[in-house]
Amino acid sequence: MTFEEARAQFPVLERIAHLNAGSIGPLPRAAAEALEARLERDLAEGRSGLRYVEELVEARERVRSAIAAVLGTSPELVALTGSTSRGCQIVIAGLGLAVGDEVVTTDQEHFGLIGPLHASGARVVVVEADEDAVAAAVTSRTRLIALSHVLWTTGSRLDIARLRRPDGPPLLVDGAQSAGAIEVDLTGADFYTVSAQKWLCAPDPAGALFVRDPERLRLMLPSMFSQLSYEVDGSFVPKEGARRFDTGWIGAPALAGIAAALGVHPEWRYEGGSAAADRCRELLSPLVDVVTPRGDSTLVSFRPDRDPPELVASLTEQGVLVRELPGRNLVRVSCGWWTSDDDLRRLADGLRG
Amino acid sequence: MTFEEARAQFPVLERIAHLNAGSIGPLPRAAAEALEARLERDLAEGRSGLRYVEELVEARERVRSAIAAVLGTSPELVALTGSTSRGCQIVIAGLGLAVGDEVVTTDQEHFGLIGPLHASGARVVVVEADEDAVAAAVTSRTRLIALSHVLWTTGSRLDIARLRRPDGPPLLVDGAQSAGAIEVDLTGADFYTVSAQKWLCAPDPAGALFVRDPERLRLMLPSMFSQLSYEVDGSFVPKEGARRFDTGWIGAPALAGIAAALGVHPEWRYEGGSAAADRCRELLSPLVDVVTPRGDSTLVSFRPDRDPPELVASLTEQGVLVRELPGRNLVRVSCGWWTSDDDLRRLADGLRG
Repeated sequence: MTFEEARAQFPVLERIAHLNAGSIGPLPRAAAEALEARLERDLAEGRSGLRYVEELVEARERVRSAIAAVLGTSPELVALTGSTSRGCQIVIAGLGLAVGDEVVTTDQEHFGLIGPLHASGARVVVVEADEDAVAAAVTSRTRLIALSHVLWTTGSRLDIARLRRPDGPPLLVDGAQSAGAIEVDLTGADFYTVSAQKWLCAPDPAGALFVRDPERLRLMLPSMFSQLSYEVDGSFVPKEGARRFDTGWIGAPALAGIAAALGVHPEWRYEGGSAAADRCRELLSPLVDVVTPRGDSTLVSFRPDRDPPELVASLTEQGVLVRELPGRNLVRVSCGWWTSDDDLRRLADGLRG
Repeated sequence: MTFEEARAQFPVLERIAHLNAGSIGPLPRAAAEALEARLERDLAEGRSGLRYVEELVEARERVRSAIAAVLGTSPELVALTGSTSRGCQIVIAGLGLAVGDEVVTTDQEHFGLIGPLHASGARVVVVEADEDAVAAAVTSRTRLIALSHVLWTTGSRLDIARLRRPDGPPLLVDGAQSAGAIEVDLTGADFYTVSAQKWLCAPDPAGALFVRDPERLRLMLPSMFSQLSYEVDGSFVPKEGARRFDTGWIGAPALAGIAAALGVHPEWRYEGGSAAADRCRELLSPLVDVVTPRGDSTLVSFRPDRDPPELVASLTEQGVLVRELPGRNLVRVSCGWWTSDDDLRRLADGLRG
């Protein structure tokens, strides 16, 4: 697939410099068409019956396998969760975190991770986003290390393999800014979340959770899809592997759309995204203070010389989609394999203007 | 709106006797069109930006208000949860049920309720589905009564107002087979779940949770939509009212579809559904052993004279959609305000055949 062919899959790119996949990715025509076709079938034929459910389960498995392939793991270790936030909840509830426990996280995390950490009642130990600082904060009371692979704020990448010690606490990785954006190596991660509507360009919401050892995580939030059979008191035989952590019904149209979106990514997606981020840095560095280290991710965050919300609003008016990071005085550019030189030039022009 | 006009909103009814809204309702053309129109806009314009999110929040509020109207309550007391199962999880986690606690439920509940009850570690006390039996099972250790308004198996209705004593444990009501099907009076319910893809005919999945006293339920599974502001350790200022229990992102296309679906119901929906269930009983009573008490709900469950899965498969082949209830030797017919005499005649013919 050439760059032009790959890019042409996204109608929004015809008019808009879409540099905000870190919030939500551009939607490919194939995903919308697959979703609509399935919806029309639901409309005409209904949404129930044995065969309908069988097909739905098959569609779930196709999505599960495609996400597993993105993570370089087995579908047996992947749960369909709908979002990164939901994946975090499953892990935090399953570990039974409570008052008296400690969790170590960084000062650059999304509410979808730290909100549930705080709600658990455990003491949330916040350190700077640095592997050594995280390691130094681990004590005998630490029940979990929970942080992002790529920080949604600065775009820095953490070396997750370095953070997991054989005798240390388990590691929950928020993969919202990494899965689909950079090549992911799960080494070190006990749990790894996926947000498929961002870098994987799926209909929203869509997501998954990798669980390295599904038998060892307690299933606290079971859904109909968790069980093989159950009794009237709710006791049940869980499914094998991570499927037991599936969070519930996903509509057939959404599943068709997600599966189609997972199929549009070219083989060179990681090189393409990385190269686009490099070009973005080169263009922006003379203009603003870029804070993302080179080569870390597909995000390029910078400190603007004016009010971030104002700058973002002005860029939006010029058809350039980026976002600001509230309270951090940062603007974030998301570069994908679909990003063109023209997109970046429009951004640079907007910064100069 | 005449019966013919109301019914004509559902393309599936042109060919299929859709008698399975208790699993999932027929989809109205208006819902599919609204969803597709919004999806096409997302495709062309992208899915992010300040204005996009503002519109998304407005759409959430429209859906919240429409569901609140169905329940006869205020939007302030309604959370958007995506499903009844998720609503049950929020309540069970929020109450902090644990080993040593007791919960009282019936022997006719769905896994979406009893699965999370069991997973909590509390002792699940199962009694027959009868108000007196439930009341008699309450002890000083009972932390929650959790049961359905209309039982998904037999279609019987419980008198929830009778179950809640002023000094007694709180009452969680699974409203999957009642909200949108019968007129719901929330008296007695501390928590009440809604499955909007069933009797409310919304795109799937969709649901909500009524919380009578939001300040008193602990927020254990917070999402981005739960908070007004937060700190780096995850501590946060929750939104006012039940909005804090919103479970997360719902796509703009889905919201448009749900809002449209909530708008297709005629004023006479409850009389219409009830009358259809009555007519169904009359037709079936000479043929099979109907177990649903007259006037209780829009479900008509019966004991067939042959293998339930075989009967359901045979009816499906004849274009008649009903379901069987595994392990209970029951077949269930769902009658909606859209159900015609012809639908019911086709069912009766299928039972005779």
